[in-house]
Amino acid sequence: MQLFIGNKNYSTWSLRAWYLMSKFNIVFTEKQLVLDTPEFYEALKNNFSVQKVPALIDGDLQVWDSLAICEYINDTYLSNAAWPKERAQRATARSLSAEMHSSFMALRNEMPMNIRAKRKVELSVAAKKDLARIDEIFTTQQACYPNAWLFGEFSIADAMYAPVVLRLKTYQIVLSAAAEQYCQHVLSCPTLQQWIIESGKETDIVACDEAGIDVT
Amino acid sequence: MQLFIGNKNYSTWSLRAWYLMSKFNIVFTEKQLVLDTPEFYEALKNNFSVQKVPALIDGDLQVWDSLAICEYINDTYLSNAAWPKERAQRATARSLSAEMHSSFMALRNEMPMNIRAKRKVELSVAAKKDLARIDEIFTTQQACYPNAWLFGEFSIADAMYAPVVLRLKTYQIVLSAAAEQYCQHVLSCPTLQQWIIESGKETDIVACDEAGIDVT
Repeated sequence: MQLFIGNKNYSTWSLRAWYLMSKFNIVFTEKQLVLDTPEFYEALKNNFSVQKVPALIDGDLQVWDSLAICEYINDTYLSNAAWPKERAQRATARSLSAEMHSSFMALRNEMPMNIRAKRKVELSVAAKKDLARIDEIFTTQQACYPNAWLFGEFSIADAMYAPVVLRLKTYQIVLSAAAEQYCQHVLSCPTLQQWIIESGKETDIVACDEAGIDVT
Repeated sequence: MQLFIGNKNYSTWSLRAWYLMSKFNIVFTEKQLVLDTPEFYEALKNNFSVQKVPALIDGDLQVWDSLAICEYINDTYLSNAAWPKERAQRATARSLSAEMHSSFMALRNEMPMNIRAKRKVELSVAAKKDLARIDEIFTTQQACYPNAWLFGEFSIADAMYAPVVLRLKTYQIVLSAAAEQYCQHVLSCPTLQQWIIESGKETDIVACDEAGIDVT
């Protein structure tokens, strides 16, 4: 099984699929491509219908889009262990994951992931509203599962929100205490730390690296 | 079970959840709200964490986001009948559904759903690229399942792409023959026809109704 991903420093959607698969000890080969290069498009064109990462090859099957890859891995290799066991919790986890998948546009545009950097940016009202919603989600779930993953055990929902936690760190956003507690829990995960360390070794710079002002 | 939806003429995401539930004969009460009115936000605020439609109440559980609602219904009431039975087909159906959920931004912005209208718009290069991808998806699946749903039997993937079929009609876009065949199959569905008829009875006009020029 081959997972095609982009730069670890920048590619939030790559992180989501990689994190889920790595955390659940799925055996796969990582095929890393530098975002937006001719080689990136060439490699994807040769293997997939869609030229976006992450994208997965499993035998003669191609699976694309972070959420679909997570559902595929859950369905095929994990006997549904990547979602909460309880029906209502599973519905909430899927709602939160789909919300991340389709929303938070202002936050995504104004705070692009850039793990190596420390930045300060002026945020729009829309981005502040996105952050308030993130705070609400993390706080609500921490009230149920203190110092733990969103639904107690690690699930696809945590993989979906992991890049947000990294953005909060880069842009030095401090949420309320309970939400910060969740962020610390995520950041202490050795699997995520592995991704962070590898992102620090990359040297390619892509366009989104221009946002914000570096702070020391 | 209550499904909160917006205007049938405009709300693509509402249609997706409604269509899946109606097509599979799920018993539910429809709670219709006029998009972007104070009553819309008030009703959602009283019932949900997120003020967007569609949103579902099932007992004391709230489920939001079209894709999460579809997965919830599939999981809870349909014993997985809303996805193809075969593993590889299910993976492709989920990839296509997630692709619709997170992509096609140009098409969505430049061709807002407006079932009652007949319009002509100048499309950007990005929107034309989106349309080419839609054509490719419909054509590829028709080659496997001629004159049928994307994966033979009706699935969540068809619910996800139904608003696109309606947009093609409104904006008078003609795709290749095989893709048109799929569109005709979708448009001949009595459940979708019911939504179309009901959209024609609505009188409220929302902001997105301004796009394009009416043609006779």
